[in-house]
Amino acid sequence: MKSADRIYFGGDYNPDQWDEQTLEEDMRLFRKAGVSLLTLPVFSWARLEPDEGVYDFAWLDRILERISANGIRFCLATPTSAQPAWLSTRYPEVLPVDIQGRKRTHGMRVFFCVNSLKYRERAGAMAHEFARRYARHPALAMWHVANEYGTSCYCPTCQARFRLFLKKRYGSLEELNRRWHTAFWGRILTSFEEICLPTELNDDYRFNPAVQLDYMRFLTDSTLECFRNEYDILKSYNPDIPVMTNMSGFIRKLDQFRFTQAMDIVGWDNYPSPGDKPHFVAMKHDIMRGLRHGQSFILTEQSPNQQNWQPYNRLKRPGEVRRLSYQALAHGADTCLFFQMRQSIAGQEKFHGAIISHAGREDTRVFREAAGLGHELEKLGSRFLEGRVEARVAVLMDWNSWWALELSSGPSRDLNYLRALSFCYRPLHDRNIPVDFLLPQAGMDLSPYALVLAPMLYMVRPGVAECVDAYVREGGHFLATVMTGLADENDRCVFGAYPGPFRDTLGIWVEETDALRPEEKNGLRMGDSLYTCGFLCDLIHVTHAKVLATYTEDFYRGMPAITRNIRGRGEAWYIGTRPEEACMDALMDRLLRHAGVHPPFRAAPGVEITRRVREEGTLFVINHNDHEAWADLGEETRTSLLDGRTVSGIIRLPAGDVGVFTDDRKDKPC
Amino acid sequence: MKSADRIYFGGDYNPDQWDEQTLEEDMRLFRKAGVSLLTLPVFSWARLEPDEGVYDFAWLDRILERISANGIRFCLATPTSAQPAWLSTRYPEVLPVDIQGRKRTHGMRVFFCVNSLKYRERAGAMAHEFARRYARHPALAMWHVANEYGTSCYCPTCQARFRLFLKKRYGSLEELNRRWHTAFWGRILTSFEEICLPTELNDDYRFNPAVQLDYMRFLTDSTLECFRNEYDILKSYNPDIPVMTNMSGFIRKLDQFRFTQAMDIVGWDNYPSPGDKPHFVAMKHDIMRGLRHGQSFILTEQSPNQQNWQPYNRLKRPGEVRRLSYQALAHGADTCLFFQMRQSIAGQEKFHGAIISHAGREDTRVFREAAGLGHELEKLGSRFLEGRVEARVAVLMDWNSWWALELSSGPSRDLNYLRALSFCYRPLHDRNIPVDFLLPQAGMDLSPYALVLAPMLYMVRPGVAECVDAYVREGGHFLATVMTGLADENDRCVFGAYPGPFRDTLGIWVEETDALRPEEKNGLRMGDSLYTCGFLCDLIHVTHAKVLATYTEDFYRGMPAITRNIRGRGEAWYIGTRPEEACMDALMDRLLRHAGVHPPFRAAPGVEITRRVREEGTLFVINHNDHEAWADLGEETRTSLLDGRTVSGIIRLPAGDVGVFTDDRKDKPC
Amino acid sequence: MKSADRIYFGGDYNPDQWDEQTLEEDMRLFRKAGVSLLTLPVFSWARLEPDEGVYDFAWLDRILERISANGIRFCLATPTSAQPAWLSTRYPEVLPVDIQGRKRTHGMRVFFCVNSLKYRERAGAMAHEFARRYARHPALAMWHVANEYGTSCYCPTCQARFRLFLKKRYGSLEELNRRWHTAFWGRILTSFEEICLPTELNDDYRFNPAVQLDYMRFLTDSTLECFRNEYDILKSYNPDIPVMTNMSGFIRKLDQFRFTQAMDIVGWDNYPSPGDKPHFVAMKHDIMRGLRHGQSFILTEQSPNQQNWQPYNRLKRPGEVRRLSYQALAHGADTCLFFQMRQSIAGQEKFHGAIISHAGREDTRVFREAAGLGHELEKLGSRFLEGRVEARVAVLMDWNSWWALELSSGPSRDLNYLRALSFCYRPLHDRNIPVDFLLPQAGMDLSPYALVLAPMLYMVRPGVAECVDAYVREGGHFLATVMTGLADENDRCVFGAYPGPFRDTLGIWVEETDALRPEEKNGLRMGDSLYTCGFLCDLIHVTHAKVLATYTEDFYRGMPAITRNIRGRGEAWYIGTRPEEACMDALMDRLLRHAGVHPPFRAAPGVEITRRVREEGTLFVINHNDHEAWADLGEETRTSLLDGRTVSGIIRLPAGDVGVFTDDRKDKPC
Repeated sequence: MKSADRIYFGGDYNPDQWDEQTLEEDMRLFRKAGVSLLTLPVFSWARLEPDEGVYDFAWLDRILERISANGIRFCLATPTSAQPAWLSTRYPEVLPVDIQGRKRTHGMRVFFCVNSLKYRERAGAMAHEFARRYARHPALAMWHVANEYGTSCYCPTCQARFRLFLKKRYGSLEELNRRWHTAFWGRILTSFEEICLPTELNDDYRFNPAVQLDYMRFLTDSTLECFRNEYDILKSYNPDIPVMTNMSGFIRKLDQFRFTQAMDIVGWDNYPSPGDKPHFVAMKHDIMRGLRHGQSFILTEQSPNQQNWQPYNRLKRPGEVRRLSYQALAHGADTCLFFQMRQSIAGQEKFHGAIISHAGREDTRVFREAAGLGHELEKLGSRFLEGRVEARVAVLMDWNSWWALELSSGPSRDLNYLRALSFCYRPLHDRNIPVDFLLPQAGMDLSPYALVLAPMLYMVRPGVAECVDAYVREGGHFLATVMTGLADENDRCVFGAYPGPFRDTLGIWVEETDALRPEEKNGLRMGDSLYTCGFLCDLIHVTHAKVLATYTEDFYRGMPAITRNIRGRGEAWYIGTRPEEACMDALMDRLLRHAGVHPPFRAAPGVEITRRVREEGTLFVINHNDHEAWADLGEETRTSLLDGRTVSGIIRLPAGDVGVFTDDRKDKPC
Repeated sequence: MKSADRIYFGGDYNPDQWDEQTLEEDMRLFRKAGVSLLTLPVFSWARLEPDEGVYDFAWLDRILERISANGIRFCLATPTSAQPAWLSTRYPEVLPVDIQGRKRTHGMRVFFCVNSLKYRERAGAMAHEFARRYARHPALAMWHVANEYGTSCYCPTCQARFRLFLKKRYGSLEELNRRWHTAFWGRILTSFEEICLPTELNDDYRFNPAVQLDYMRFLTDSTLECFRNEYDILKSYNPDIPVMTNMSGFIRKLDQFRFTQAMDIVGWDNYPSPGDKPHFVAMKHDIMRGLRHGQSFILTEQSPNQQNWQPYNRLKRPGEVRRLSYQALAHGADTCLFFQMRQSIAGQEKFHGAIISHAGREDTRVFREAAGLGHELEKLGSRFLEGRVEARVAVLMDWNSWWALELSSGPSRDLNYLRALSFCYRPLHDRNIPVDFLLPQAGMDLSPYALVLAPMLYMVRPGVAECVDAYVREGGHFLATVMTGLADENDRCVFGAYPGPFRDTLGIWVEETDALRPEEKNGLRMGDSLYTCGFLCDLIHVTHAKVLATYTEDFYRGMPAITRNIRGRGEAWYIGTRPEEACMDALMDRLLRHAGVHPPFRAAPGVEITRRVREEGTLFVINHNDHEAWADLGEETRTSLLDGRTVSGIIRLPAGDVGVFTDDRKDKPC
Repeated sequence: MKSADRIYFGGDYNPDQWDEQTLEEDMRLFRKAGVSLLTLPVFSWARLEPDEGVYDFAWLDRILERISANGIRFCLATPTSAQPAWLSTRYPEVLPVDIQGRKRTHGMRVFFCVNSLKYRERAGAMAHEFARRYARHPALAMWHVANEYGTSCYCPTCQARFRLFLKKRYGSLEELNRRWHTAFWGRILTSFEEICLPTELNDDYRFNPAVQLDYMRFLTDSTLECFRNEYDILKSYNPDIPVMTNMSGFIRKLDQFRFTQAMDIVGWDNYPSPGDKPHFVAMKHDIMRGLRHGQSFILTEQSPNQQNWQPYNRLKRPGEVRRLSYQALAHGADTCLFFQMRQSIAGQEKFHGAIISHAGREDTRVFREAAGLGHELEKLGSRFLEGRVEARVAVLMDWNSWWALELSSGPSRDLNYLRALSFCYRPLHDRNIPVDFLLPQAGMDLSPYALVLAPMLYMVRPGVAECVDAYVREGGHFLATVMTGLADENDRCVFGAYPGPFRDTLGIWVEETDALRPEEKNGLRMGDSLYTCGFLCDLIHVTHAKVLATYTEDFYRGMPAITRNIRGRGEAWYIGTRPEEACMDALMDRLLRHAGVHPPFRAAPGVEITRRVREEGTLFVINHNDHEAWADLGEETRTSLLDGRTVSGIIRLPAGDVGVFTDDRKDKPC
């Protein structure tokens, strides 16, 4: 597949909304802003196929010629996320049934049944048309299939296919009854035909975790088939063009580890909420990079200014878009794409930010900042594209575990997987220690890592605990937290005490878990220090482990809360509660020391330093503070890729500024 | 049409709930209380037509004779707001389908499909029966059609008629696609048959403003047809009797400017919430008066005591009903009617206040107060009935703009049109300056006004901006606020910067609009004064305007927040944010001075002074305080119409008291 | 019927979830814990009847033999609360329609239409199978029908049967129209076929109290028929075995006074929320004891540790389960049963506490505490089983009144019947004064009581007020509160002032009722003391009563708030508001003095003392404090039934401890 020769800069463009004059003005503005890629025509199915099998591509041909004539490449999107009204009207099977059992009427976008054969037939036909016409177009940079997949459906087709999915997955009813533990509440099945989708009509979507988990797997697979339907067609015309789709934000309902294996490259839309901390955004990028084993990804969308769907749509502050863009690049993105190039004048998103706003002017703050960024990125060339981030710390992360954890009734309603991940990720990010996210599965290779974390890894797939134990015994360092190791892939709890298959590795067993209300706290005594903790408190017994911290209050005062087990040549740590941040910092420092992982750079708080390596290294330094801050880049003499100056040692970045430097070190950074 | 010879005092009466003895007692109590009008029989369809086409009016005849024999007139209500169960059962088409797509079963009230031909047939037949029997009854004062219209419906009939409505409105699919901007999200239509009603089944009711707006117009028109169906019949029997219906509170979903044009007079039900400020209630009356170009209106309902449907149903305090009644009269009401005369013993509203409560006694506070008010109103005769309020300040107000504004996704979820109106109205009310509410439309006559306000006039109809601009150039004063001038009638935003068609008039353009969370503030520097502001902050560029105030914080510190543009012989002001009240007071004082509008009377805070003029003037003075307060009524010698005393200059009103005085001034009051 | 010879200790056991080895281990642990009763097989229908009429009881036979071989008895549960999937699939009529009109699909538990004839047929057949096999089994202690009944249904069968229910209840449409007061909102019915169930489709479930009340009666009766269907079969095989079902917590929707009359004994599941005060739990037990005229009851379920369905599932603290168990016994329970013996490994309740947790160990706190309690209860033998609590204070309590009160629209949304009961119960519990709960109905015998309370007895059945008045005139003491005496059985308010039929007894009438917001207060002057009050304030006129307290604020300052009426040889008190607790304490002391009711024991706050009497008395002393506390047990010398020591006078109980003592006094304790 062909590699990009630049950091594509640009984004979603909907030319079918504009007249000739506006299009011409847009081309002028795109050139002025250094735009190199446009994604289109995401929502033009009805324009391109006004009636079944009747195609009108002439207008698109003209647009694409105009775009390439302006030196801009395109990311061609099959417009299959919003089927034409005629398709819904003529073939209602295309429309989904919702979780309340209601047949949807035509509307919205991404509102088709992913299992509808008619939908797949027409989407496939459209993909053929696209590929036939444009697969060899010299300005075609990549394919983009549909848009933000993620429609649940509970129609009869899905019902039937769900039964087939289960028959294939479990082979027999006996196995299904066993794996779903149907003896509970007398749910034993005597025929596959008795299986109902988990909806509001039977409340299984929230009261029957086993069936809901399999429904979510089924939904992922069904959506994947939809994607593959088009992927295979597009690739058949030109295998060199990468094919992907853009994932909606941080969508929980599709298992993205599974989904992205079918793509050539991961694409995702980054829309941080106003209150999101830099480490939280960084973590999401790192997860995205982890989906395909560290492969770089496409930042398919971000907003050049405010959003429209937040309760209060705060303007992005000056410099904020630039910081977010460099943060994405620093963590593995190869592009800087926006939604959207020109602001729609109507519809749900008319108040969403755009590079060219309703005002249509180039003398706006947003256009100036975008154009500045566009030209700045041109200078960076393709230096770090497809470059990797080298990490010695890994976090185990699994969509299946996420689903199961948040489906759990008890012990606390505050179970939140992303928050749990972020809670362990934050101190690493504060220390500028690179982190990889890994899918925990049998046979995974943990050897590159000095430290492996398992925050709330509630569900454990077969072979994972064995892998972890071998890793520890051979000298690895492992950290697990409360709610780790409780259930198997069907949400059946371990027989025997928690943390289940990690019990021996960790050298402990958990007798009970207390749930605290948000305003309640317990205390931790760790050495001479006292901290607070909350959320959940495991009542731990150590079998082989050493006690690092004990509770200071309540009837379990004095019982272990944090433990460390030396096993073989390695160590396995366990945190049975949610300590305050200062405690996590102290703990992480100690753990990193034990694991031999050292922060690669010293820097003031709020300064993020990341390194990507291809043939040569590139160092990104981002000052998230609203004041000047320092970073110590070490003895190496580096060249700024933005202004050409050379630096070494301590540098000072203005408030909110970004630096990009050469980095020649070949050794791993920590 | 015949004019009333008194301020009708009385209200809703449901005699079919009571036995002979109770009816007789009621007549005694009505006479005792000075009741002059009863509204009935609002909910008696099933009693009057126990089977299709079978009528039983004998009991109603007897009641009406008894009422008129007691010297009381009646407002006859066609009982068509609650169809009989047999009608729903025999013709299910009469029952609505709700926004979730669910066919309703018989129940509630006002639960028919306004487009059901069967409903209209039976309602029309009932209107014929009423008119045939009573249209020439000497005690008939007015007709009242149905009750509190406002049922949405999403049945197949409505679906079909909505398509016809659109076909008529837009002529062609091409025009519809253009006006709805269906290119967004690929919603292009290839047949009118593809149009679906905006419901929860496609989420268009909240995610597709263009279709939702047209649905609300369609609902208004359909309801209007329902009303007209009966109106035409009633008028055909006796054109002299006025026909109206009562509007439910301040119902957003029907365009009342449009709806009330089909009535002889506006009727509305005033149910302030316990926390409503006097200026907010006054504003609602002024809007009602504005619906038919300043024509006086019928206060169809208010509660003589607590309501039952508030979370906490506070008793009305002694004197409170009297103050509310005089406030209504002062702002344009010609009647003082209550819901209800006798408290129902059962059903949803059994704890709603009534003049005769469950206790059935006349020695209650509520009965005494009502009777006192009844006799007091008798003294006022017909002096100010049909009298007008003369105002030199107008507020532009449009239901269509209200809908579109509150449908908007972004910039802030706190968009609230009534609050925006009230925010500009409050300082005028504090200064006792009369205000007219006008529908902004092409050709409107602004010449009577020295000042015209456009608070959050989000949607602008064709010709309105031109009208405003001509008004300003000829010497008028105009004020617009943030969120004014953004969209057209189909919620398509302006091409070019906000405030769109008012840009030249105001001499500014708005680059961006920041949305603040409720707890966030910015500051305003206006001359030497500092104020706070919040909610939204426009980032304004002045082209010709002068800057009156600038922001003091954030990256847009120093940018204009409030501007004034001299244009021709007039001035156009713009407020790009929501300043604190003290700032609005300062600003309004200045603006009124420029516009040459002067408060007609000085008075203590909380004292409301209003003037109605027919042949002679009448002055209403209401002390909303719980302490004595003063008002300066000027040099003119006035006679109190309540106690006959003469006053001039400064008067003192006891806590919560009301004064009504002669007013001979023929010149406009401000 | 045969009496128990011990306090059954044990609970729900689901052996069909476990393998042979686990079953054997369970038997060992049960013996170790002193388990004497197991409830099973609650959810095994599908296992026992894998196809229609095909039974497989062999596995259950083996289990029961194993259980009885271990000296444990069983409470046999017909597994009819969760029908097999094949039954739902083959006969969809078995599945309910929900209040939204949606047909349910198979899922959950307790999800059958209680009026389905097919369900009743299959449930009856299952009951026959059970009875035929086990009715004479020597280890059978009792029958347990289904589990936690309480499914609403709105299917066509229910619709039809509801009409029949009403026809039977009211005889004629005329009577129905009168009783439902259908004249309100024009709801007059001309045929029974026009009656619709009160659902979300007509909003009658919340806006039409009369129909909703009858629906709740209908639901109670329909559920009762379901229970009786199995009851009659089970009894026909062996009339000596008691039959009951377990009520879900404190289920509002079934009239438990009516429902439990069809049982041999009341069974209920006690799941206090973490914040419930001891008096609140005690009150619920007393209500349960009141359902069948003071008969002792079965505590069918409680949790040996945390629950899983609370937002935050707090662990039960050491000793807490023991205290709760003794409190139940002290108030009338004859058993100490838990849900569940062994924790399920999967499903909705997998994190619910169990005596044997997932860890499967006996060295856990929970197992140790349970075993300790089991052996302690063995010592108590059958001494107080079937014993009664002797009370001279009664509270009138009616599910119908509960329904009607909380359906009320106005005067306040904070109407909460249990809270109102608890508000009067709390000071009695604080004084260790026993309380009976009585259903208020014509002919009830109040003569055993020195004091009768009617907190918010909103709905009054015919004959009740006459009964109360006779009771007072003959020397009884009566207390009613605000919201008492307003409505009849059809929620029609009294004609004439509140408190309706109690007006003469209480010697007052209420003119109005003010509703205060939660943050608002009024004051009370009672003698020389000042208190606060809130919630509701009746504006009272005394006709014969004396004024005990007056309001201190607002326009009704000085009006009576609390009154006392001497009538015949008795007294009738009225509290027209919600006073603060200190005021209730002062008032209750005075009232108890007047009524001649004296606290039987002095004790420190938080020490609960209760007495059950069979042939001999048993005294329960529970220290709910987390510190040592005293109780004065008087001059009698008592033997501790737990440790054999003798005590008299003042004893000191350690924090959270329990004492059980002999009690020889034959006179009533207060």
